[in-house]
Amino acid sequence: MSSADETLEKIRTTVEQETPDDIEIASVTFEGPELVIYTPDARKVANRDRLVPNLAQTLQKRINVRPTQGALVDEQRAREEISSTIPDAAGVQNLDFDHDTGEVFIEAEKPGLVIGRHGETLDEISASVGWTPEVVRTPPMESSTVSNVRNFLKQERTERRDILERVGRQINRPTTDDADWVRLTTLGCCREVGRAAFILSTPDSRILIDCGDKPGAEGEVPYLQAPEALAAGPQSIDAVVLTHAHLDHSALIPILFKYGYDGPIYTTAPTRDLMGLLQLDYLDVAAKEGRAPPYESQQVRDALKHTIPVEYGNVTDIAPDIKLTMHNAGHILGAAVTHFHIGDGHYNVAFSGDIHYTDTRLLDGAVNDFPRVETLVLESTYGGKNDYQTDQADSERVLKKAINEAHDRGGKILIPAFAVGRSQELMLVLEEAMRSGDIPTVPVYLDGMIREATAIHTAYPEYLRDDLRQRILYEDENPFLAEQFQQVDGGQEMRQDIADDEPCIILTTSGMVTGGPVMSWLRLLGSDPDNTMMFVGYQAEGTLGRQIQRGQDEITLSDGSGPRAERVSLKMEIETVDGFSGHADRQGLETFVETMHPRPEKVICVHGDEQSTNQLSSALYQKFNMRTYNPKNLETFRFV
Amino acid sequence: MSSADETLEKIRTTVEQETPDDIEIASVTFEGPELVIYTPDARKVANRDRLVPNLAQTLQKRINVRPTQGALVDEQRAREEISSTIPDAAGVQNLDFDHDTGEVFIEAEKPGLVIGRHGETLDEISASVGWTPEVVRTPPMESSTVSNVRNFLKQERTERRDILERVGRQINRPTTDDADWVRLTTLGCCREVGRAAFILSTPDSRILIDCGDKPGAEGEVPYLQAPEALAAGPQSIDAVVLTHAHLDHSALIPILFKYGYDGPIYTTAPTRDLMGLLQLDYLDVAAKEGRAPPYESQQVRDALKHTIPVEYGNVTDIAPDIKLTMHNAGHILGAAVTHFHIGDGHYNVAFSGDIHYTDTRLLDGAVNDFPRVETLVLESTYGGKNDYQTDQADSERVLKKAINEAHDRGGKILIPAFAVGRSQELMLVLEEAMRSGDIPTVPVYLDGMIREATAIHTAYPEYLRDDLRQRILYEDENPFLAEQFQQVDGGQEMRQDIADDEPCIILTTSGMVTGGPVMSWLRLLGSDPDNTMMFVGYQAEGTLGRQIQRGQDEITLSDGSGPRAERVSLKMEIETVDGFSGHADRQGLETFVETMHPRPEKVICVHGDEQSTNQLSSALYQKFNMRTYNPKNLETFRFV
Repeated sequence: MSSADETLEKIRTTVEQETPDDIEIASVTFEGPELVIYTPDARKVANRDRLVPNLAQTLQKRINVRPTQGALVDEQRAREEISSTIPDAAGVQNLDFDHDTGEVFIEAEKPGLVIGRHGETLDEISASVGWTPEVVRTPPMESSTVSNVRNFLKQERTERRDILERVGRQINRPTTDDADWVRLTTLGCCREVGRAAFILSTPDSRILIDCGDKPGAEGEVPYLQAPEALAAGPQSIDAVVLTHAHLDHSALIPILFKYGYDGPIYTTAPTRDLMGLLQLDYLDVAAKEGRAPPYESQQVRDALKHTIPVEYGNVTDIAPDIKLTMHNAGHILGAAVTHFHIGDGHYNVAFSGDIHYTDTRLLDGAVNDFPRVETLVLESTYGGKNDYQTDQADSERVLKKAINEAHDRGGKILIPAFAVGRSQELMLVLEEAMRSGDIPTVPVYLDGMIREATAIHTAYPEYLRDDLRQRILYEDENPFLAEQFQQVDGGQEMRQDIADDEPCIILTTSGMVTGGPVMSWLRLLGSDPDNTMMFVGYQAEGTLGRQIQRGQDEITLSDGSGPRAERVSLKMEIETVDGFSGHADRQGLETFVETMHPRPEKVICVHGDEQSTNQLSSALYQKFNMRTYNPKNLETFRFV
Repeated sequence: MSSADETLEKIRTTVEQETPDDIEIASVTFEGPELVIYTPDARKVANRDRLVPNLAQTLQKRINVRPTQGALVDEQRAREEISSTIPDAAGVQNLDFDHDTGEVFIEAEKPGLVIGRHGETLDEISASVGWTPEVVRTPPMESSTVSNVRNFLKQERTERRDILERVGRQINRPTTDDADWVRLTTLGCCREVGRAAFILSTPDSRILIDCGDKPGAEGEVPYLQAPEALAAGPQSIDAVVLTHAHLDHSALIPILFKYGYDGPIYTTAPTRDLMGLLQLDYLDVAAKEGRAPPYESQQVRDALKHTIPVEYGNVTDIAPDIKLTMHNAGHILGAAVTHFHIGDGHYNVAFSGDIHYTDTRLLDGAVNDFPRVETLVLESTYGGKNDYQTDQADSERVLKKAINEAHDRGGKILIPAFAVGRSQELMLVLEEAMRSGDIPTVPVYLDGMIREATAIHTAYPEYLRDDLRQRILYEDENPFLAEQFQQVDGGQEMRQDIADDEPCIILTTSGMVTGGPVMSWLRLLGSDPDNTMMFVGYQAEGTLGRQIQRGQDEITLSDGSGPRAERVSLKMEIETVDGFSGHADRQGLETFVETMHPRPEKVICVHGDEQSTNQLSSALYQKFNMRTYNPKNLETFRFV
């Protein structure tokens, strides 16, 4: 009997001892980080108030109780029963029965009506059909990404069950050693922005945190072949943890599966979907630019298949001696400040990932409250001593003024923006400004992946800021559905029509003018001095965006849509509005640390250029008298 | 053709081009770090003044020129020829012909007479017999270690040639990469004294520096299984470099061969011999204490067989991108400050090993002058802010006073001392004091390994301090041969006789009274208040030496020589004399850094307890405004 089997046998004994005699336990099994208990008496279990929480407490495991097959009524009858129980107003779109787990996924427009007061309707369904109902909201905007991911995972259920069982056994293997040491190795994003990747290791476990590319320097990938990382083979990694979907954190995760990695990826559900969208786009861009992509779309699917979604605030076992908890980071949808608890109270380390400290229109500010934390690994994008940004109210005033001026000239506004995060924030600003009459209500055209990214946002309203979630869920005031937002889905012809038409605003990718539809828009709008191009995000060194921002007015475009490269004399107005960044500025970073609870003993400053990490590290040391570090890539710290 | 063969072929072409046409090149081959050129015209090569140095310069290799077999006269005739050429006064003891290399080793009491004026006699031999004469001094004291090692290596010549050839090919393999990074990983002796072990690595190479045990904490071994070290298999290590023979630096080297390591060990010749002596004693002690030794004597022999001796000051290729140079460390015989030059001017790091900064009677002070050095890894044994030792003159006064007092009482002096280093220093002090009449000339009995360790010293006079070397070599005033030094070679019976006899001095192991003959001496001498026990070295926490030093006067002895454990009431005088340490004190360490040329940018303080490394690190930072570190074990620094 393997040692995981022995562990499971012990757990089963405990479960039987702790459960009243009238409840039969059919089997217990690991499924990823959870323990699943199969019982013909699932209803009775649900009705015993503290039974499951007490078991979870005793076993120190997340527990999922499922009915045995014999306790389930057949699918056809269950379908009829469920349809007759849920009120029509709930707008049920789909019922999806998972015979492996005994779950039925109920997709509805109004999940509240499916759940019922205090969960009464769900209880009724569960009692009558035996199946465990799981409610899924019908997204207010249809997202092909979300539905593709759901369909794919459904189709791969059998393999996924195998993966989860294997992962469960891995997590529950006995430890070979006491937690003698805890180490952190930097594989990238030290004294630079890009290729985020860290190894957190103990004598028993090895966790990879993020695995990104370096925009504008495709050859500079994380040091995955370091001895502390993959040199001992892909199976030496227990788990990958992803802080958020941006490519400088996620782009190279699929390559791990090409190398033979076969383990889990832990991240939030929205990050999983955004990651899939961005990775496929990454392959697309590489192909268009004639670069050999480092992996195929098959590995993107592998990554999705191996992803175990975690929710903010839930403590998850990811290795025999490591527990993960993710918290809102305020940066983009699903982004997480990621906390690791190692051993039994042995050590705690938090990775900020990318953070925004204050609330934005889209997201709440980053969480910085933890039960314990000794070391913080902190992003430093705006860590330089002069990296203070204007506040959002000022930024919005500048934005609206520029829009009004262009409109008064009869011009159009072209805004290049990142599809995920900045675009949605701007949509909220524009919708509000139009609703309040601060700017004229004109069409806002969304080009590139922006609409799809927005649709993913509306599929996960619980990850958005409180008041925005309310508007999306209960008041039918979903700002993203405002009628002035129109998708550019007619290609070059539609763009030409828009360009020839009345004043409007165009929100388009790419955010740094390095390719994508913004190139067509520059050709169409660039030579008219009445038009305005407005930069709302960071333009990296070496990008066309940076060159235009600095005053270059002769540019060469070759976007593939015209017959060949074309020189354009830029005569449009060029404006830059800061304050819409998804990153905390210097003040925000300091305040994040100052108000962090508990105050960490050590801060390791990463994800910023050499000057930013150095200056932030010095400032935190001087202000808060803590040990601070500004490491290079390929260094290894020992915490204990 | 393998790439090492290609390299060799290119070298051969260069050698042929650079050599006059009348010199035939039979073959070229790698032998460890050297390039060996076989030629039937070895004499002609030797007579072309700058030919070999110029070739070495061009090829950037150490070069050894050997005659081809056909150029050698047969052994019997050569033996007669050599015997008739060398004057009888040279005292030739032995001729040893190596048919693999064409060398003849001439062991003589007076090597100068074998060499002749300006090497004339050697030239004559070489011309007449074809063999290349190598002169070896007959040690003034017979050392079984030295002769055992020499005989063993002679017997293993064939395998050793294979090892050297393999090592040579390893060193001359093409590099896979530019020297992108240089890293240092601490596997032990950080914030502690003991288990010295470091990994110096580049994308191409991985070097292990030292591999010691931790005295008094046998379970705490270096973190050899760290990913940066042996986790990728024993063959991932290119070379082991040993700074000196003490067990806290060398004890666990043989275990590498048990793990399957098959590569070279670079160290000085005396360190090789002392290492063999101490490792075998380490196994012996483990067996006597009933511990399972971590390796067998076979692995000690493996280590000897794989050792490539290097001389102070010679630059040696030890990996495709790493050159090693060893310099006198002043600590014990053969101990080295070890300098690594990485890449082509890419980076330089020096490891102090253990150092003594000022001259002692036995050794010159440590070298701290290098062509370049960016980082110094510095021992910190006496790095604490109060770790100042009295100077040696004062120490000697205290020692002599205590000896005279005991002698006046008619008592005996018992001095526990480490066999290697401290014992020889004390012998020099005692011999001088007796010669000058400062103390009475009484027998000085040497017990344990002291005599053998002393004999190894006299076999390598070129490693001793200048004036001492002169005395040993040319003036027949070898102080170690003074007649008052007498070996205890008659076991318990002889000890009893000595104890019953006239006043004397006993110098015996172990240095910290943790076992060995000192235990018998305590039983024989401990209860007589006329006797004196004198501590001259560091007594570690937890040792019997430390307890006695602190005043404990009831001790339990079980040395295996008596029937069972015995309680002894200590009534003898207890004295402590500091200043005889083999380590630089705090002042010495600071001065070593202050006068180091060039001044390093970074100093990493190791090999001291937490307080010592911390205080030395702070002091060097404050005084010299350099970056200093006080790492933990298992940390990895990146230098570039």
